[in-house]
Amino acid sequence: MSLLTQDQICQQIIQAHHDLIVQQPLVHCITNHVASNYVANVLLAAGASPAMIDNPHEAAAFASVSAALSINLGTPTEQQMQAIPLAIQAAKQQQRPWVLDPVGYGAVLHWRSHMVDQLLDLHPQVIRGNASELSALAGQQIESKGVDASVASEQVYQHCLGLLAYSDCVAISGAADYILWGAQHCLVRVDGGSALQPRITATGCALGALIAAYCAVAEVGIATIAAHAHFAIAAQLAAQQHQHLGHFAVAFMDHIQSLDAQQLQSHLKLHLSPLKD
Amino acid sequence: MSLLTQDQICQQIIQAHHDLIVQQPLVHCITNHVASNYVANVLLAAGASPAMIDNPHEAAAFASVSAALSINLGTPTEQQMQAIPLAIQAAKQQQRPWVLDPVGYGAVLHWRSHMVDQLLDLHPQVIRGNASELSALAGQQIESKGVDASVASEQVYQHCLGLLAYSDCVAISGAADYILWGAQHCLVRVDGGSALQPRITATGCALGALIAAYCAVAEVGIATIAAHAHFAIAAQLAAQQHQHLGHFAVAFMDHIQSLDAQQLQSHLKLHLSPLKD
Amino acid sequence: MSLLTQDQICQQIIQAHHDLIVQQPLVHCITNHVASNYVANVLLAAGASPAMIDNPHEAAAFASVSAALSINLGTPTEQQMQAIPLAIQAAKQQQRPWVLDPVGYGAVLHWRSHMVDQLLDLHPQVIRGNASELSALAGQQIESKGVDASVASEQVYQHCLGLLAYSDCVAISGAADYILWGAQHCLVRVDGGSALQPRITATGCALGALIAAYCAVAEVGIATIAAHAHFAIAAQLAAQQHQHLGHFAVAFMDHIQSLDAQQLQSHLKLHLSPLKD
Repeated sequence: MSLLTQDQICQQIIQAHHDLIVQQPLVHCITNHVASNYVANVLLAAGASPAMIDNPHEAAAFASVSAALSINLGTPTEQQMQAIPLAIQAAKQQQRPWVLDPVGYGAVLHWRSHMVDQLLDLHPQVIRGNASELSALAGQQIESKGVDASVASEQVYQHCLGLLAYSDCVAISGAADYILWGAQHCLVRVDGGSALQPRITATGCALGALIAAYCAVAEVGIATIAAHAHFAIAAQLAAQQHQHLGHFAVAFMDHIQSLDAQQLQSHLKLHLSPLKD
Repeated sequence: MSLLTQDQICQQIIQAHHDLIVQQPLVHCITNHVASNYVANVLLAAGASPAMIDNPHEAAAFASVSAALSINLGTPTEQQMQAIPLAIQAAKQQQRPWVLDPVGYGAVLHWRSHMVDQLLDLHPQVIRGNASELSALAGQQIESKGVDASVASEQVYQHCLGLLAYSDCVAISGAADYILWGAQHCLVRVDGGSALQPRITATGCALGALIAAYCAVAEVGIATIAAHAHFAIAAQLAAQQHQHLGHFAVAFMDHIQSLDAQQLQSHLKLHLSPLKD
Repeated sequence: MSLLTQDQICQQIIQAHHDLIVQQPLVHCITNHVASNYVANVLLAAGASPAMIDNPHEAAAFASVSAALSINLGTPTEQQMQAIPLAIQAAKQQQRPWVLDPVGYGAVLHWRSHMVDQLLDLHPQVIRGNASELSALAGQQIESKGVDASVASEQVYQHCLGLLAYSDCVAISGAADYILWGAQHCLVRVDGGSALQPRITATGCALGALIAAYCAVAEVGIATIAAHAHFAIAAQLAAQQHQHLGHFAVAFMDHIQSLDAQQLQSHLKLHLSPLKD
């Protein structure tokens, strides 16, 4: 069981959220062209300061001055593929956290998957993805469709235990989100959210970048839960106001910005259980 | 004259729309960086499952597992130019439909235009574009301005008849849309829409991808009309609510998602006439 | 002191705004993948016709037929780096204005900064950026964070006087915007705007492209002020309606489109003073 109580975790999330807004950490994102605008806007709304430097000439220098690094392989280019390891190595040298989002990992997309395999050895603080991506990454290929999730995340958390050899936390997003928190030997389920959320493209990509932002101001487990809670509560509040995607997306961005300690306190839905391995 | 009556076409469109939502076809898009986020959101709102895999290392493998392929040359990169023929060949090998959107085709933009000329031999199921692009592609250079339409589409459908040698359908978008449907030897005019629509960037790019999505679940002519009708009705309903672009764009996305059989039945405005060649 | 009165400037801005809508100038943008969709939508809403041609095979030919050119180095690629000087040289040959936005210029991001240094010799009509970028470009390195502004623009306009050797106007954006107008030997402060504006990503990038659009229809100083006023008034009106980023962004786009002469007349807040060098 977790060494922290649910209430202690909640208080630390509230503190992390406060610190994110106060510190406005500079988050270096190497991400895909579908997501880049949305990721930047989500980080700005949450209070962080994003910058998308994805060429190999500048990636290392920029990672060195950033507070955290977010790596996403949605639409990799040759130049991004060169930039990614350089950025990670520079971040590690400065002891800055980095987050890995292995978009589309699996048997079909060899090029990025091979790169992801190599990146595991650079020990990301957090690996996040949907159930089919992370299951495949853990060596348990399951049926998947494209880059979107097609497997319930609760079915696969046991598959993903092995990934804790490569990272401090593993976060599986889905109808409910599951976070494997190695240091606490604890599985955290984050409830809430909305079925509309995955129908906005790049939601997962933005979540990965927000995890990185929180990692700049909080311990990695708290950071990972905080980012998921931030998204789940914002989506839940937005879905209470709007059932259609255009207006839902607008309200979601409003709530990403306006989330406060009181809302975190009253809406946070965590379920903790011990990791069974 | 068409072998199908207007009412038969309407019923098949309603069926195609239903099938799109039920089957959630995986649509492989190689598109430009201006459009990619918007295209993905439109496909998700309509019920399809988009993925933007545009590097030459993965494009063929991904096209092989996708239900349809959408090729758009808005901001081509060297890597996309390598990826495009590989993806098309893989799609053809699996007998999956592919749609060609020759953005900016014409005398000024040689590089992409030369590529498009070569792609014609790979027989897209549908070629779609604005009047100036398609007129130029058909060898009838007309005055154009940039990548946006500056010629009324009804003036050029006769220019485009020759393109039916290279594809099953040719779709010319404008104030009204004109679809040349080879198999039915029929010209279909789709009315509706809004003058605000072309003032949202990448609307045409998203329409091309939506045609591909419909091609995954319906016969190519029905698919092409269905995608245009889907856009025209959503834009018309959005424009009844909002006259300014910010709110119009939000409402348009809502209506892309919420379109239903009853709206298709009551708002569909088709005009059929025989192709004169 | 300026040779023009404040009222004369206001009337010329109203004329420029009218001409932008009537002439719909084709604006060639080479910009970053975070900004490209947003830049295109802002230009369309304002009445211009954007096109993002950023490969070296087509950039020169397209610049030759465009009314203005906007160069932004947010996420440079090798191909964009090749395309940029070709586009500028073609624009200059046709005596078309071009605008330089040296995103992220400074000690950390060498690759783009070195390119920007070279581009200065091609004499952009306008250089625009935030205080830290332009201060660094003027050889006065100040503390900066990432690609967003962290220095008040009024502190640095004196640093930037030297940049008038390389361009007709220098525009420093911040809480208030400062425009150094060489021909009038005048400093123009544009008030208004909203603190929410910099929390929408790519706002500065879109402003740079809008300056280019106005340069296609008006004298460079008037064009630069007009674009800043257009943004400041739209943001101010949007912020009166909405305090959260999602809805603010939607209303901002509405107001970019619906701005009219009466609003320019009543909301324009300029402060003119002589340039002291």
